[in-house]
Amino acid sequence: MKLYSYFRSSAAYRVRIALNLKGLAYETVAVHLLKDGGQQLSDGYRQLNPTALVPTLADGDWAVGQSMAILEYLEETHPEPALLPAGARARARVRAIAQFIACDIHPLNNLRVLKYLKHTLEADEEARNAWYRHWVGQGLAAVETMLAGHPDTGRYCHGAQPTFADLFLVPQVANARRYDCDLSAMPTVLRIDAACNELAAFRQAAPGNQPDSEG
Amino acid sequence: MKLYSYFRSSAAYRVRIALNLKGLAYETVAVHLLKDGGQQLSDGYRQLNPTALVPTLADGDWAVGQSMAILEYLEETHPEPALLPAGARARARVRAIAQFIACDIHPLNNLRVLKYLKHTLEADEEARNAWYRHWVGQGLAAVETMLAGHPDTGRYCHGAQPTFADLFLVPQVANARRYDCDLSAMPTVLRIDAACNELAAFRQAAPGNQPDSEG
Repeated sequence: MKLYSYFRSSAAYRVRIALNLKGLAYETVAVHLLKDGGQQLSDGYRQLNPTALVPTLADGDWAVGQSMAILEYLEETHPEPALLPAGARARARVRAIAQFIACDIHPLNNLRVLKYLKHTLEADEEARNAWYRHWVGQGLAAVETMLAGHPDTGRYCHGAQPTFADLFLVPQVANARRYDCDLSAMPTVLRIDAACNELAAFRQAAPGNQPDSEG
Repeated sequence: MKLYSYFRSSAAYRVRIALNLKGLAYETVAVHLLKDGGQQLSDGYRQLNPTALVPTLADGDWAVGQSMAILEYLEETHPEPALLPAGARARARVRAIAQFIACDIHPLNNLRVLKYLKHTLEADEEARNAWYRHWVGQGLAAVETMLAGHPDTGRYCHGAQPTFADLFLVPQVANARRYDCDLSAMPTVLRIDAACNELAAFRQAAPGNQPDSEG
């Protein structure tokens, strides 16, 4: 399998963790979001993925984008170790945490959105950083509430094994740190992030450990 | 089951279509996003759903948010009629279309984001409408490319039966029309939207047909 990835993309980061946890070998194809006016916007990449977003997973001559769709695909085709818990309600809880991060935190702070704020709305750096921290702060505070004190929260977001929820949480926390967001009121989020990062599968998926990493 | 819903919420609209297609009876609990300073922000609603977003599906004393998590839950607990196709790759394609709309079009145009643009970034109505049309236009153009000419596109986004992809497409098209977005370059999107709206399950889920509708 090939993963079209950018080291800093948190959506690609989620998939890298899943591939590592499942022990699946893959080749990284670097798509630099800033070079050449954005390599994801090239005709070649758009043929593979018309949305011009990373990541894309290619399996032979077949390819699919969107991190959550890729994770569900990997879960169906390589079910062990499971990254979704047993039971429809437990799976719904895990997917809801993951989806909230995927839909309602991350896309607001995507590179293309920050570019629009800068170039079209002429928001200065201070306003853009405030925007970023607003959505991350509000979003991760809600995640903290979903996790803290919930009977199913364990060492990880759900129980004693990593699930999709952790795969979305850890890259989002990494982004938050990069933008100096205040995470002091989110002890459960921080505890789970630390537990995940004790696992090599998470650490090896981090932006700093990618072949296209710039540090 | 109870669906905490706002008639204009396109995320709630997706779930309403699924419940109708699967023939599941449910009670609508209206959560007015504009009244009382936003009923979704009340302590009561936040206890049910800490993200303060609609929809929430309640099944007895259990509840879950996030439309995609709810749809996967309904698919697992009420598998007929199936809203995901057979085959892992086909399901990945359907989920990728749905996720792209869920993550990369819709959240950028959410009410809370438009409010931030207005009140914090002081973007005027023209700038806010341009923002809305930018993301919808770019997003649905990518959806058009994913659908047009793809061998698996049929009467609906994938084959001859509605799938998750259609449940995300139709509410997004309705939003686009509400904001006078130009859809003339998206004939496949429009054809599939029309096919879906021939089904009562889609029509009955539309904003204008909800108990809390304001027209």
